[in-house]
Amino acid sequence: MKGFDFEEERIKQEITKLGAKRVLLQLPEGLKPEGPRLAKIIEKSGALPIISADPCYGACDIAVNEAESLGVDLIVHFGHSKLVKHEQVPTIYVEARATVPVDEAIEQSLPLLSSYTKIGLATSVQHLQTLNQAREILIRAGKTVIIGDSGQMSYPGQVSGCNYSNVKSIADEEEAFLFVGGGLFHALGIALSTSKPTFVADPYDKRAFPINDEAQKILKKRWACIEEAEAAKIFGVFVGLKPGQKRLDQALNVKALAEKHGKAAYLLAAREITPETLLEFPSIDAYVNTACPRISLDASGKFSKPVLTINEFMVASGESSWENMLREGLFES
Amino acid sequence: MKGFDFEEERIKQEITKLGAKRVLLQLPEGLKPEGPRLAKIIEKSGALPIISADPCYGACDIAVNEAESLGVDLIVHFGHSKLVKHEQVPTIYVEARATVPVDEAIEQSLPLLSSYTKIGLATSVQHLQTLNQAREILIRAGKTVIIGDSGQMSYPGQVSGCNYSNVKSIADEEEAFLFVGGGLFHALGIALSTSKPTFVADPYDKRAFPINDEAQKILKKRWACIEEAEAAKIFGVFVGLKPGQKRLDQALNVKALAEKHGKAAYLLAAREITPETLLEFPSIDAYVNTACPRISLDASGKFSKPVLTINEFMVASGESSWENMLREGLFES
Repeated sequence: MKGFDFEEERIKQEITKLGAKRVLLQLPEGLKPEGPRLAKIIEKSGALPIISADPCYGACDIAVNEAESLGVDLIVHFGHSKLVKHEQVPTIYVEARATVPVDEAIEQSLPLLSSYTKIGLATSVQHLQTLNQAREILIRAGKTVIIGDSGQMSYPGQVSGCNYSNVKSIADEEEAFLFVGGGLFHALGIALSTSKPTFVADPYDKRAFPINDEAQKILKKRWACIEEAEAAKIFGVFVGLKPGQKRLDQALNVKALAEKHGKAAYLLAAREITPETLLEFPSIDAYVNTACPRISLDASGKFSKPVLTINEFMVASGESSWENMLREGLFES
Repeated sequence: MKGFDFEEERIKQEITKLGAKRVLLQLPEGLKPEGPRLAKIIEKSGALPIISADPCYGACDIAVNEAESLGVDLIVHFGHSKLVKHEQVPTIYVEARATVPVDEAIEQSLPLLSSYTKIGLATSVQHLQTLNQAREILIRAGKTVIIGDSGQMSYPGQVSGCNYSNVKSIADEEEAFLFVGGGLFHALGIALSTSKPTFVADPYDKRAFPINDEAQKILKKRWACIEEAEAAKIFGVFVGLKPGQKRLDQALNVKALAEKHGKAAYLLAAREITPETLLEFPSIDAYVNTACPRISLDASGKFSKPVLTINEFMVASGESSWENMLREGLFES
């Protein structure tokens, strides 16, 4: 796969340094096709490679249990930066930085940003090395650029699927956000967590576009889900089983709060929350998802019942308001 | 859910006996709707119930990692008998015995069995308590009945999705098998692992029917998969991550054997093997599945590439023959 840096030399050096004999490769869905090629490199370095074939959507999903179960002495996790503080198995993160140039897409964004002066700049881990160049182009166009640093992420300006603390930390100072990267996923997260005008500079399509209409569509669906959940009598509260998604304390809080409001609530532990999962519990009217908030937001049309984030549940239970939630974001960070 | 014994009193007694404070309930898909009702009973016993919402297809799938991760001090596993020898977390198995009467279905099977005298009798865990009655009906009809006991299962005459050792142990003595229970799944397993005429006495539909035509259809598909895999240059070898599905040694054997025959082979660790899993590895031509063999046999039409059992791979690689495999069974036990 061209266009990404898989840091093959660093991987070989780490294997030698650790004397690793068995290595687990974990790649997100888009990079999994590279698994066999990378496995061959590892095998040539003298270690047995095992490719994790289960879905992987983030560093929250780090395969430490799988590694321990397979007697693995090194995990190589691709495509995300470190999230879980202490892995029980030695782990290296290969962030798979993209080599695609971003200048043309940034230039394309300038007409869209014409009515804004203060621009917040953000990107996914793949394009972090382009942030300085992006800033320079914006500054040359007369913009004031701020790159947020909440201290929660591996890098300033970085956003992940569920953590927008870097953009939230500067949202009060900004008039608009520019996200550098492909697809809608991260840019939607910025728009939903800041409620600010948000634009995408997509280096793959070499074009720029606004994302707020898409964000509005999601908000309408979320409002409908919250309304439906207000009438629910029985709640299922999902507890995530992936290392970076397990929030049992918060699930217990949600359960207690539901019961305070006269509802029944059941804890459901899950690795994956799918439309099929919900069909197995016909007596449950609505769900609260304390695992990955993006499952609630991005897949809502696929679910037969409302699947709320914790913040959305606070609105449905009357503990918070829709407006307050929009200010604070649809999910935690 | 009527028709099954969930042994609520035993569950309450075990919780009290162990002083369990946090209980994980694990139910197969068909019984999951009972989860909330059972959780309520556990909560009234003074323990916090957590329902496992991930798919569960057998006792191979016992949620010990999940239990440890959630600080659970008792697992209650429903619908299967014990399979994994030592669970790291105290576990009770509630076999969910069915209360449906079986006599009418057994009577219906007699005309189908008219040309056979020696009948092997088998059932799933749900109907084990009916085996004596079934035997008596067959004996009254002039049959010689044998109930196999390989010593591998919890009970004589019991078959599970992947273990037919009880019927294989008596296959040489029998002319035909009668399976007592619903659906095609277990009966197909008997037909495929013994190649003997196999009939189902379905107590839910109160009828009996032969299963061998269905088994033949599956065999034709398996033959086509093996032929396709013979031409494969690159193999993926699945290692199961569920406690009772992890056969890393066998996966390493398959890898070595593939390489001996000039093929490339990559180990793929997976909790679930789905059609989507295969789509992530376009360079791989065929797969060998050392996890749950029924995924290969029952879902083959859904997969874009051949997914062979270990025994099928032995045929594809020329180490065994189709005829030999039919004699030994499509999968291990």
